[in-house]
Amino acid sequence: MGEVVVSPKSLKEFTTEVLIKVGMPAEDAALVADTLVMADVRGVSSHGIVRLPFYVNKMKLGGTKIRPKIQVVKEGPSSALVDGGHGMGQVVASFAMNLAIKKAKETGVSLVGVKASEHFGAAAYYASMAARQDMIGIAWSNGPPVMAPWGGRAAAIGNQPLAIVAPTKGEPMALDMAMSVVAGGKVRLAAKTGQKIPKDWIVNKHGRASEDPSDLPEGALLPLGYKGYGLAVMGEVLSSVLTGAGILSEVCSWLFNPTKATNTGHVMAAINIAHYIPVDDFKARMEQMRNELVNCPKAEGVDRIYVPGEIENEREAVRSKGFAVSEAVFGDLQKLAAEYDVKIGFVID
Amino acid sequence: MGEVVVSPKSLKEFTTEVLIKVGMPAEDAALVADTLVMADVRGVSSHGIVRLPFYVNKMKLGGTKIRPKIQVVKEGPSSALVDGGHGMGQVVASFAMNLAIKKAKETGVSLVGVKASEHFGAAAYYASMAARQDMIGIAWSNGPPVMAPWGGRAAAIGNQPLAIVAPTKGEPMALDMAMSVVAGGKVRLAAKTGQKIPKDWIVNKHGRASEDPSDLPEGALLPLGYKGYGLAVMGEVLSSVLTGAGILSEVCSWLFNPTKATNTGHVMAAINIAHYIPVDDFKARMEQMRNELVNCPKAEGVDRIYVPGEIENEREAVRSKGFAVSEAVFGDLQKLAAEYDVKIGFVID
Repeated sequence: MGEVVVSPKSLKEFTTEVLIKVGMPAEDAALVADTLVMADVRGVSSHGIVRLPFYVNKMKLGGTKIRPKIQVVKEGPSSALVDGGHGMGQVVASFAMNLAIKKAKETGVSLVGVKASEHFGAAAYYASMAARQDMIGIAWSNGPPVMAPWGGRAAAIGNQPLAIVAPTKGEPMALDMAMSVVAGGKVRLAAKTGQKIPKDWIVNKHGRASEDPSDLPEGALLPLGYKGYGLAVMGEVLSSVLTGAGILSEVCSWLFNPTKATNTGHVMAAINIAHYIPVDDFKARMEQMRNELVNCPKAEGVDRIYVPGEIENEREAVRSKGFAVSEAVFGDLQKLAAEYDVKIGFVID
Repeated sequence: MGEVVVSPKSLKEFTTEVLIKVGMPAEDAALVADTLVMADVRGVSSHGIVRLPFYVNKMKLGGTKIRPKIQVVKEGPSSALVDGGHGMGQVVASFAMNLAIKKAKETGVSLVGVKASEHFGAAAYYASMAARQDMIGIAWSNGPPVMAPWGGRAAAIGNQPLAIVAPTKGEPMALDMAMSVVAGGKVRLAAKTGQKIPKDWIVNKHGRASEDPSDLPEGALLPLGYKGYGLAVMGEVLSSVLTGAGILSEVCSWLFNPTKATNTGHVMAAINIAHYIPVDDFKARMEQMRNELVNCPKAEGVDRIYVPGEIENEREAVRSKGFAVSEAVFGDLQKLAAEYDVKIGFVID
């Protein structure tokens, strides 16, 4: 299958225009477009432009509100609970992180809980908003059940993406991870291409570890050991039990149930560095830490040691000039262009 | 080797008396004794009474201050930075968590950073303090380098224990984990008993995964994949880069350098549940989540699915009536009893 090289800047404009035509406010449309294209630019294409047709479809079918009423339903000096009104997760999560940043400016640290939200894409996007304000940002979400509990054989819990992002003198240091060994997309890709998968990725419906990726739909992803399972549970406690969002099976798949609100929950925390240590000291200390880690003697066959987010930062430097999408994805974008009468100006010849 | 069964209550009294004779204030002595015996009671004996001789020795040699000057050096409405004055980690961490709880009562959520502390034992102890106040507690610490970065072959980072504890209608739900695949103690035990270890536990000095536990001293523990490494780095950012504590190699081993302060760092966070959702609702929702997880269909050969901390809670119910220590540990306690003229009244015949 061929590929089409696109300009991120123009693709963002295209996406914004499509979302405005769907009915979103211009500011929200630009934000969602930015999260999608940024994910592609950073090489996290599973959360990139490939999602646009699904998001648009879900808005058209009413499963996601195009112009949600986002409300702060409870508030303390460093806390808030936000009702996302079943809007796009990107819009709701950004609202919540902006509120967290505002509160952390005043009090030092804050945590905003979110209910009635939707799939928010790449968690690091929101945590990075805090890092740009010289704060450490944390974003944690629940999601539809895709993963077995430790010792289980059915999908009972989300893989609970967690991002922690800290500022440095250069690009932020960004951890963005889910609690499964791998993402479901990797297993589905192996199924498509007929490849075997490692034994710790999934459990089949009989409760046995399986190397056959086609066992996933009736089985479940495996957590990153009992520790990954434990973190996933605590992700549910914070993003859902605490916020009033759907718990476990109450969160339906945004992908497979486009007519239904998922009631996804998140928490967004901001830690204002200057309340602890001067920001310049913090950044110098970040550099000290990084240098020591990346200069550690290397294991056999390893060329380089990274710190979290460094690979994505380097990809961003390259891919912000242009990146390739598959012909299938390009075809979907052409359909959207036709449906909403938006010009495709993003192809780089 | 034989075992001696001890009464937790009496062992706590014994330990308190020893620590008072070492010179600690009575309240601090009782607190340290409680953390040690509680770890044993919950079956986490690596952080239990076995540590007492090391702690006492380090205080005698001046590496840990017996009566530290603990100071709040910076403070905001929901933030604080604490200088632990190189006192026992248990005393410093409890001080910090009490301050975090006080601030979260007022503002909703808080995060207290700690520098100039020492090894604090089991992280869940401090997070549980918040849970007893109907808050979610988080405790995260750095530690001396024992683990390789992802792709490294030398010990360059601590295994960064993290605890998250949430209240329920019954015993709290407590996650307490380090970021290595296993604790160093497990590898050293395998070396003593001449057993092979799984290939993902350690890396040897040549940078190869090793099944020989005797390779650990010149090699390093392995992180729980690149995700465990990423979490460990972010644990360092929060507990050390942010607080002014020692960074990576600046943190010396409390076990092998008893004359030197480690400058360990921690963060303690408290999230006041009532600021988000009524506490009774939260606890009902915790029960809903637990029921759904533990009733998930089980994998082959699995009898039961647990939620975090449940195994330890059940051990506590049994072991709080008495637990066994090895003759070696008992011998160490006898030496302390003789040295400090404290009566051994804790043996259950």
